This record gives sequence, C-alpha cells and structure tokens, in this order.
Amino acid sequence: MSSTATALSGGFALPVLFDLGATFAFALSGALAAIKRHYDIVGVLALALVTGLGGGLIRDGLFLDVGPTPLLTNSRYLEAVVLAAVCGVVLGGRIHRFARLIVIVDALGLGAYAAFGVQKSLLAGLAPPAAILVGLVNAVGGGVLRDLLCREEPLLFKPGQFYFLIALAGAVVFLFCTVTLGWSANVSAIATVTLTFVTRMLTIAFNWRTAPV
Amino acid sequence: MSSTATALSGGFALPVLFDLGATFAFALSGALAAIKRHYDIVGVLALALVTGLGGGLIRDGLFLDVGPTPLLTNSRYLEAVVLAAVCGVVLGGRIHRFARLIVIVDALGLGAYAAFGVQKSLLAGLAPPAAILVGLVNAVGGGVLRDLLCREEPLLFKPGQFYFLIALAGAVVFLFCTVTLGWSANVSAIATVTLTFVTRMLTIAFNWRTAPV
Amino acid sequence: MSSTATALSGGFALPVLFDLGATFAFALSGALAAIKRHYDIVGVLALALVTGLGGGLIRDGLFLDVGPTPLLTNSRYLEAVVLAAVCGVVLGGRIHRFARLIVIVDALGLGAYAAFGVQKSLLAGLAPPAAILVGLVNAVGGGVLRDLLCREEPLLFKPGQFYFLIALAGAVVFLFCTVTLGWSANVSAIATVTLTFVTRMLTIAFNWRTAPV
Repeated sequence: MSSTATALSGGFALPVLFDLGATFAFALSGALAAIKRHYDIVGVLALALVTGLGGGLIRDGLFLDVGPTPLLTNSRYLEAVVLAAVCGVVLGGRIHRFARLIVIVDALGLGAYAAFGVQKSLLAGLAPPAAILVGLVNAVGGGVLRDLLCREEPLLFKPGQFYFLIALAGAVVFLFCTVTLGWSANVSAIATVTLTFVTRMLTIAFNWRTAPV
Repeated sequence: MSSTATALSGGFALPVLFDLGATFAFALSGALAAIKRHYDIVGVLALALVTGLGGGLIRDGLFLDVGPTPLLTNSRYLEAVVLAAVCGVVLGGRIHRFARLIVIVDALGLGAYAAFGVQKSLLAGLAPPAAILVGLVNAVGGGVLRDLLCREEPLLFKPGQFYFLIALAGAVVFLFCTVTLGWSANVSAIATVTLTFVTRMLTIAFNWRTAPV
Repeated sequence: MSSTATALSGGFALPVLFDLGATFAFALSGALAAIKRHYDIVGVLALALVTGLGGGLIRDGLFLDVGPTPLLTNSRYLEAVVLAAVCGVVLGGRIHRFARLIVIVDALGLGAYAAFGVQKSLLAGLAPPAAILVGLVNAVGGGVLRDLLCREEPLLFKPGQFYFLIALAGAVVFLFCTVTLGWSANVSAIATVTLTFVTRMLTIAFNWRTAPV
C-alpha cells in the first residue's frame, strides 16, 4: 500500500476550474430535473445540491470518513451549485439549446470524478478494488440520489447507453496508469479523462447500449 | 475562522428540554405518517427514528464526521423517539386533536435545529455558506428522509407553504447575529427561534406559498 | 461503559466465512431483485453492493465514524458481492431452486449482523440502547436501501412475517449475554445467532405475522 501512496505523491490535483465545472454541470442537471417537475425554488436548490455534491459527500462522509469534506470547507463548490441553480431558473425552457454543452461537460466530469475518487481512496489507504468502488460512487452517486429524490427509478440501473461502465473503465484505467505503470497522477488523470470522454461521445454518437440481464 | 469560533465560545447550548421537544415532535410526525399508511409497529418505530434523528445524523455522520454523534451517545434522544412512537400508537386516530400542538412544536424545532446546525458547523471550522447548508439539512433532513422512505415525493420540493425558506432564513439570521453582530450564541438562538416561529405561524395563518419555477 | 468494554475484550470476532456468507446472501438477494426488474449488469452490481454492504456502511460511516470501514479495507467483502452478482446472473431464472438456501443463509446473517453491530457500537463507547439501534440498522439497513433504490415501499415497514423484530431480539439478547451475564462475546454471539435463526425458521414455518397499527 505504501508503494501505491508513493506513486501518488506526485501531487495530483484536478485543476480547480475543471473540478468546479463538473460540479456545475451535475448541479445544473439536478436543477433542470426539478424545473421539469414544476418544483419551487427550494426543490431546484435542493436537487442542484444533491446532484452536484452527492457523489463527493458519499465518498468523503460515508466511505472515507476523513473529517469535514472539502466540498464544505472550500466555498467554491457551494458557489458553483448556487450558480447552476440560478442558471437553471434563468434559462428555464431555453435550456435545451445548451443540452449539447451539458452533455460534454458531464462527460468530462465523469472521468475526472472517477479518477479523483480513486486517488483520494488510495491516499486514504484503501486497496485497489475498494478504490474503484469509491471512484464509481464519486462519479455516479449524485445522479442516483437525484433520481431517488425525484422518485424516478435510477436510470443508471436500467438498460441504456454506457455511462456507469465508462466510469468503471475510467477508475480502472486511472488505477492501472498510476499503480501498475507508475505514471504521475496528473498524466494518469489526463489519460483517464481523455479515454472516458471519447468513449462517452462515441456511445452517444452510435447509441451503444447495455442489454437487460 | 478563529474569530468566528471565538464568537461562539459563549457556550451556546440549546436547552435540553427544547432540543428533545423538537426531536419528539419530528419523531411523532414520522410515527403518524407510518400509522396513516397502515404500517406495523416496526414501520412506526423506523419512521419515528428516521424523522426524529435523520437531519442530525446527516449533519454529524455525513457532513461533519466528528465521531459517534450525541444523538447516539446521549440516550435521551432515543428515549424521545421511542416515546413519540408509543404516543403515536396510543393516540392513534385521535391525533388530529393534537395537530395544532404538533405544528407549534415543529415550528419551534425548525429554527432551533437550523441554529444548532449552523453553530456546530462553525465550531467544526466550516465557512459560513457551508454552515448555512448544514443548518438547513439539520432542520429539514428528517422530513425529507421520511417522505423518501414512504415513497412520497418530498413535499418540501414542491410549491407550498414556506418551510424550507424559513429554515434558511433562520440559519442566515443566526449566522448574522453571532458572526456579524457578535451577539452571544444564546441570545442569537433566541432571536432566531422567535423569528422563525413567528414567520411560520404567519405562513400558516395567511397561507403564504412559494410558486413553481 | 468501561466494564462493558471489558466484557467484550474477549476478542469476539465473527468467523470470517460466516460474515462473508451473510454478505454474499444479502448481495445475492439484491442481484435477484435487479434481475427481476430487467435491470442491466450495472443495476445488478449496484443493487448487490447496496444490499450486501449497505447496513455495514451506515453503521461505520454514518453512526460510528471510525475512519475507512473494513468493508472497504478488507477486499474479501467486495469479492463476495461481485461473486454474488455473478451467481445471480449465471443462475438467472433457476434461482428459485436455491430459494430455501438463501432464506437459511439470510436467517443466519440476520442475527450475526445484529450481534456484530451491537459489539462494534459498545466498543466505540455507545450506550446499550444506541448499540441496539446500530445493531438493527446493521442487520436490516441493506434490505431497506435495496427496496428504496428499486422504488419499492420498504417491505420491512409493512405488516408481514417477523424479521425486524427478530433482529431487534437478537441485538437485545447479545447485549444481555455480554453485559448482564458477562458471557464472552463469542459464546454470546453463538447464542444470539441460534436464537434468531430458530425464531426466523419458526416464523416462516408457521407464518407468524405482525399486525398493522
């Protein structure tokens, strides 16, 4: 485990703008879900919060238990969520024009969150399989909580376009690059995000889908 | 942050009877929701627990991560929940006679829980916006979990009488009184609870409502 | 409290195969719920994880806050979950032949998880009533989360065969044996599991049921 930690001591940190962009994109998707359901401003804020920060809160609060999470101690995350809620309300019905942009930012965030969850877990001393689990939950947890609070059956579980599997691949690739190949965390993260982004775009373009079991 | 902590060192603690009263009121509302749905004694106990302690558990377990929560280490909280479940079962169909009392205790608890969540967060080193979030979740989390477990769409998110917004106002007012005005935590809490209580009563009297976005 | 801790210092640990067997049984029940709903492989894995590890994650992450949980640091738990998901998929429609086996393993796990949750809570310094609550959540939490994610009203809350009440009895019995009678943790656990197992089998055989309140 100490060799794993050493491999990561290269100070990998997701560029802040990138991390905040992903939080913003996830929060916006939550705000839009609330608007679609004719919730009030409270529902918009609440779903933006849960979707934007949910995955990270489960990672830090439930899995890693490492004290107050950066999602709360660094106020930029909350600002990104509130901004997303405001954008959702202001843009309202015209949001579909931005649909493509949201999909792109979401696809970037998916890999970044998976890599970030894996890295944080390894530094906390978890073994690789557990780190992959935490990376996955970090990436997709907010979306599941959003569906849960809206009383939707989580989309994620039902046959559909690859999403969870791409996050899983991202977590595995990041682990492979850092621990097996010994790449620096930054280079590994770039490789991970590139791979997950391209795969996600191809999935959407060609409508690759999972099958029911 | 240290000045914030200093502002709170005045030893603010919600009077125990008050805190337990709020836990009891929230737990009772959970028990009644279970009885309305014809759950068995297990469902009554479970919903009383989740509604009475849910907001505090999210605060301590998920957000602040400060070790075993007082909700478990101080046995009075559990006793209040069990008592509420018993009252719910015994009073049964006649509970509507007490509806007004429950609304009043709930309105008192709303502001107290918001203030308590903010204070505990500041003492844990969170910045004000994060502290407001934790205060909100402390105040309304139990009710959301209750609706979630009953498969109700959380009432909170849908247009309706002011409730969440009053909790939000309470958290902001408590923060303003302690950090900006430098009032002692006790005086700030009394101001907060008074304001939220009066606003909530007026909301009910005049049926003030939020609008869908 | 120190006498309680002393009573438990006898190094009680659930035999690993037993603990893993319970995780496997719970995870399998989650995987089968997903297959029944025609989820894809993602849904099968997710429900297996939530059902198999959910109770323990709430225990360690939300209630006790004792740092990274053994469920993640000991990789065998994740292996048991993945194995259960694979078994669910491979066995598919023929799983009903194993229904009796699953019920038996589940009945064994119920008491073991209740005892384990109580013991871990006492060692973390909780008072007996809180320890009983944690034991209960440890035993039934995964099943409630499974129902929640599938948008089922938790079966647990509705009148039906004794299940939660058996877990409650198990937690109380374990506490009585260790703290009041001063038995070693191992002997107490065996007594607890025996009692809960026999009661659960009798419940199924005679269809003992709770009544709506």
